Amino acid sequence: MEKQEGITEIKFFFLQLQKEICTGLESFDQGTKFKKDKWIRKDGGGGLSCVIEAGKVLEKGGVNFSEVFGKTPDFLLSTRNSDHSLAVGKKKVDLFFATGISLVIHPRSPWVPIIHMNLRYFETGGVSWFGGGIDLTPHYINPGEATFFHSALKKVCDQFHKNYYPEFKRLADDYFFIKHRNETRGIGGIFFDKLSETSDFSFLDRFEFIKAIGKAFLPIYSQIVNDNLNKKITLKNREWQLIRRGRYAEFNLVYDKGTKFGFETNGRTESILMSLPPESIWKYRYEPKKGTKEFETNSLLKKEINWLENKQGKKGR
Amino acid sequence: MEKQEGITEIKFFFLQLQKEICTGLESFDQGTKFKKDKWIRKDGGGGLSCVIEAGKVLEKGGVNFSEVFGKTPDFLLSTRNSDHSLAVGKKKVDLFFATGISLVIHPRSPWVPIIHMNLRYFETGGVSWFGGGIDLTPHYINPGEATFFHSALKKVCDQFHKNYYPEFKRLADDYFFIKHRNETRGIGGIFFDKLSETSDFSFLDRFEFIKAIGKAFLPIYSQIVNDNLNKKITLKNREWQLIRRGRYAEFNLVYDKGTKFGFETNGRTESILMSLPPESIWKYRYEPKKGTKEFETNSLLKKEINWLENKQGKKGR
Repeated sequence: MEKQEGITEIKFFFLQLQKEICTGLESFDQGTKFKKDKWIRKDGGGGLSCVIEAGKVLEKGGVNFSEVFGKTPDFLLSTRNSDHSLAVGKKKVDLFFATGISLVIHPRSPWVPIIHMNLRYFETGGVSWFGGGIDLTPHYINPGEATFFHSALKKVCDQFHKNYYPEFKRLADDYFFIKHRNETRGIGGIFFDKLSETSDFSFLDRFEFIKAIGKAFLPIYSQIVNDNLNKKITLKNREWQLIRRGRYAEFNLVYDKGTKFGFETNGRTESILMSLPPESIWKYRYEPKKGTKEFETNSLLKKEINWLENKQGKKGR
Repeated sequence: MEKQEGITEIKFFFLQLQKEICTGLESFDQGTKFKKDKWIRKDGGGGLSCVIEAGKVLEKGGVNFSEVFGKTPDFLLSTRNSDHSLAVGKKKVDLFFATGISLVIHPRSPWVPIIHMNLRYFETGGVSWFGGGIDLTPHYINPGEATFFHSALKKVCDQFHKNYYPEFKRLADDYFFIKHRNETRGIGGIFFDKLSETSDFSFLDRFEFIKAIGKAFLPIYSQIVNDNLNKKITLKNREWQLIRRGRYAEFNLVYDKGTKFGFETNGRTESILMSLPPESIWKYRYEPKKGTKEFETNSLLKKEINWLENKQGKKGR
């Protein structure tokens, strides 16, 4: 496939995926629909933001498509490579093109995890790559559910390369980490960047991988939502949810590269910050008591847990 | 006054001021007291955090004292000078000492503004300076109150130098600015850094200025609290307050240098983030209707308003 043709196909795929995901998520919320918001970026490009608020199941969620282009910002020129990357060419780099889909769902029930997915295509200076990831942030970590989530991602990855899952899982552990709290955002997932054409992988191979991840989102998250939707909720559960959402806001405002990239390229603030929770609280030195479910969750907010093994031996589903 | 002796006096002043402010603020909240929390910094120093939560008047507030020292972090060595500064010496700079008081108050009533004050002393590489500021973030901007607040700060500044108020007011406008929203955090106040000994100002002069600002806090804020405490509150007012608090969280997590400094020097996270609101919300594209008090506030969230003149002609108090 030619590159130019490729871009059109990628855009079309992201837009189609956005539609499918919105329709799929709306089916949980009889009645509440995503609002569509088209926008134009002054310096080039634009997007379509789809946002749901005050739904019965989804308290707030955004599924954004964007396509931006223009002069490459300085901070991108110093960008580093990962193992799967081509170096940014040595020729004068002054234009970039980026398109992607980004979603964050904040469910109303504390038992239903927050989910995030981002898939993107980027080109500058004659090279191009895919990046993205999908990760789960349960307010209450359920090891059985974590095993289901990670196994499902592994299954998709394994169709493409046996190293994808272990490597991208490790990158997610490193990326979705709240340094000042010394804790992970949630149970991680997969994260990757600079997925370029190499001697082993064609442009098409990479795109097929992106498509497979995108297509996997709805069945995986639907299963997780359905498993938790009818669990009883106490005020204590809600309080804990609002505290965990505060941590989510901390991560997104302090560390998230998508947020930084958005701000530094004069992105659309309301679309970038759709990721922020509908409501959150901060309590000074809140520490859950030993033996509680909240305490257990805190003890599992760390890197390098092999969720595939489900050592905790608990059956969550 | 000798420098070494100076440090002891500065510390003593900050600790004494912390006590006075906590006692003063507690007098609003019959019954609810600040909790004192002493902590030690592994790499050198420590502090005393005083935090109030769930008060009748003060929903959340922190008044922190800290004193930290150790190896100067790299990011500080590249620090730039302002007009009032001495250049950081050319000799090998590898140790720093910093002490200060920092406070943020989130009142329960949407009619009572959020307030922040920070006063700090810093030394490294043979030079030393004071920095700090005080600024007001009303959920609803009242021009009469803004005039009172800025006039009171000007009065303190004018006792030391006629340029202090205009210059420090301008620096506050620039500093307390939420770039991605293109709006100021509130109505500003004064902000200053690198206030060193110069041919015109002795170390003692500078310290006297810091003392005067510190002493001015309680009478100024008490007046503002008392003026607004008994105003009627609607659900709409509370919703707006929670939205404005979201912006406060955005500023503190994305831009605030104290937060960054704290994180980068392995500071105590719970003390650094006591500034975050007790509760906040984020709504997608929330835009107040024309003609409402919320709309008026939004229209006043900009730099370079001369609050001394109170052009709006409204008498807030």
